[in-house]
Amino acid sequence: MGSHQKPSTAGKPIRCKAAVCRVAGAPLVMEEVTVAPPQAHEARIRIVCTSLCQSDVTFWKLKDFPGITPRILGHEAIGIVESVGAEVTELTEGDTVIPVFLPDCGECSDCLSKKSNLCSKLPFKVSPWMPRDGTSRFTDLDGNTIHHFLSVSSFSEYTVVDIAHLTKIDLDGDVQMNRACLLSCGISTGVGAAWRTADVEEGTTVVIFGLGSIGLAVAEGARIRGAARIIGIDMKPEKFDVGKKFGITEFVNPADCGDKPLSQVINEMTEGGADYCFECVGLPSLMEEAYACCRKGWGKTIVLGVARPMSEMKLECFEVLHSGKILTGSLFGGLKPKSDIPMLLKRYMDRDLELDKFVTHELDFKEINTAFDLLIEGKSLRCVMWMDR
Amino acid sequence: MGSHQKPSTAGKPIRCKAAVCRVAGAPLVMEEVTVAPPQAHEARIRIVCTSLCQSDVTFWKLKDFPGITPRILGHEAIGIVESVGAEVTELTEGDTVIPVFLPDCGECSDCLSKKSNLCSKLPFKVSPWMPRDGTSRFTDLDGNTIHHFLSVSSFSEYTVVDIAHLTKIDLDGDVQMNRACLLSCGISTGVGAAWRTADVEEGTTVVIFGLGSIGLAVAEGARIRGAARIIGIDMKPEKFDVGKKFGITEFVNPADCGDKPLSQVINEMTEGGADYCFECVGLPSLMEEAYACCRKGWGKTIVLGVARPMSEMKLECFEVLHSGKILTGSLFGGLKPKSDIPMLLKRYMDRDLELDKFVTHELDFKEINTAFDLLIEGKSLRCVMWMDR
Repeated sequence: MGSHQKPSTAGKPIRCKAAVCRVAGAPLVMEEVTVAPPQAHEARIRIVCTSLCQSDVTFWKLKDFPGITPRILGHEAIGIVESVGAEVTELTEGDTVIPVFLPDCGECSDCLSKKSNLCSKLPFKVSPWMPRDGTSRFTDLDGNTIHHFLSVSSFSEYTVVDIAHLTKIDLDGDVQMNRACLLSCGISTGVGAAWRTADVEEGTTVVIFGLGSIGLAVAEGARIRGAARIIGIDMKPEKFDVGKKFGITEFVNPADCGDKPLSQVINEMTEGGADYCFECVGLPSLMEEAYACCRKGWGKTIVLGVARPMSEMKLECFEVLHSGKILTGSLFGGLKPKSDIPMLLKRYMDRDLELDKFVTHELDFKEINTAFDLLIEGKSLRCVMWMDR
Repeated sequence: MGSHQKPSTAGKPIRCKAAVCRVAGAPLVMEEVTVAPPQAHEARIRIVCTSLCQSDVTFWKLKDFPGITPRILGHEAIGIVESVGAEVTELTEGDTVIPVFLPDCGECSDCLSKKSNLCSKLPFKVSPWMPRDGTSRFTDLDGNTIHHFLSVSSFSEYTVVDIAHLTKIDLDGDVQMNRACLLSCGISTGVGAAWRTADVEEGTTVVIFGLGSIGLAVAEGARIRGAARIIGIDMKPEKFDVGKKFGITEFVNPADCGDKPLSQVINEMTEGGADYCFECVGLPSLMEEAYACCRKGWGKTIVLGVARPMSEMKLECFEVLHSGKILTGSLFGGLKPKSDIPMLLKRYMDRDLELDKFVTHELDFKEINTAFDLLIEGKSLRCVMWMDR
């Protein structure tokens, strides 16, 4: 870090280890791959830590498009710039960077606006290619193309990322790579949804549907904002104990609601609905329930969950008109990666945002299939893998 | 006005003329009715002017509940307090008041909050009775009950209204009763939706679906706020000429869109969607189109149209999550009657808000069925009726 000497690998392909998804749903295959040099507006990154996010598992399982094989999954990580391509001025070799699936070009009307985090120059899409030229930088030892994932592909010792997807951070001695990497996706998404999209106010009531890492990160954001009640909803009773650490004050298991719809239970608990409802599962019926139990007049329902393609939620028109409720969605928590990740990192360094409690496991990169098992079995929140171990 | 002597009618029933809906969809019957004295928290009002709003026509046509006969329709009006019931301290005989379908009790958590205009003490519902005790103050000459409408029933020389539904205003010499009465419903709803609910910003693009009085009032609100483009959508081409007076800058007739969905036409015109879309018709499909052509990242869709009972709008979950768009509804334009009607009246007196152009016709009360014909035939925007002529 900090050296500005050209590394000997610059401009040349790099051979390194990657965990490749060869068959949807089958264990990843640890193999040697070739990572091409970065093209214009790209940087090649040496990944230091990567963690596993639910979307990796979702896409790993997908047999049909947008699932695709062979592919290098992984999109929550931190790394060091190994070399940069043409036209790259904002980064240089040795910089510490956090890759993010959401682009932040810094030039378009969205990136220049305070109101949007949805870059329109390189619009986010679930593509198996590099975002700018639609090709791949990965090949296997037989010379066959390996696909990218969410513009990051961090399950590889080296990866190539467009600079719109890279946030440079300054790490001081207090911040560990195995914590900062969490800001790359899930934790930022949840905390941001509470902080930025919902703008949770002090003393309010928050309901969170689904207490995975994203839901718990919403709780963390709401806790920091001073929410008075944070009601967590999950089918797994053990989530309540976990959730308490993140500020969850009450717990509802839909299985315990008897004949009552979940929204009715919440409406009764909150005497008319919550100020903010966050859907973190991705079920249309749960989005409808969330809308049904956010408070008339000012209640906000924020959708974070990724639903199945083409699925629809329904709203009664009378309710939309008469309730004055607000419905919106939140991608990456409404955060702008390049300005907001450094802000969150500072909050972590100030001991305001608590990242440590999200990390339930740390493994070596070669144990990546164990990380998948832990997440699928509900045993982990965030499992951080060290690439060099 | 201004006299504080008890009128001789106080405490006694009043016999007066009213236009009664005896059969759904049939001409109103001008007949003598008896108006009981006001009960606690009520005032009896001598109506000076009433105008006709689309909801009067909608409920006049309704054969089934919430349609009901016999009923005194009318909910956009202005009048003078004739007498007040027990517990009434905020109003006295001779006060000029604007009745509003939406209550504003001034005491509940909603009325005390800046964020809501949906009173929870006397929640708005489409009821044929007085809001507080669920009875009627009207009887016909045979002693049979006549039902109320939207807590106002202004198609009568006298009516009884709960004080939560009455806004006292100070009229100076410049303000005419036949203008101020417009603030009782439609114009406030449209202007408020642009002003308060959407909070339209200068230089933005606004799309309005449906150019009736409410849609044109949205345009008026957006015009005052300095919107750069106000695109009006209506099936009637003549609405464009009408709309220009209200600030409409462009016009789209869905019949001219060929095979393209309306939202696609708007997305092309606006290069990615409008900052604000207002649905003023009440069709689920149009609400979906409005959502589809408000801009990603910050676009707001505001539903003002009253849809058929039980009708639903559908949203693709992917779009909700990925677009960051905001959906909400606006009842009475998000305005609080008691504080916002005086504000709008001041804007009118300051020649900022232009009310005159909404009034296309003025008639005598006895010509009320002509007023219905004019509205149904699309010939009027606002037809004001004078009760004493």
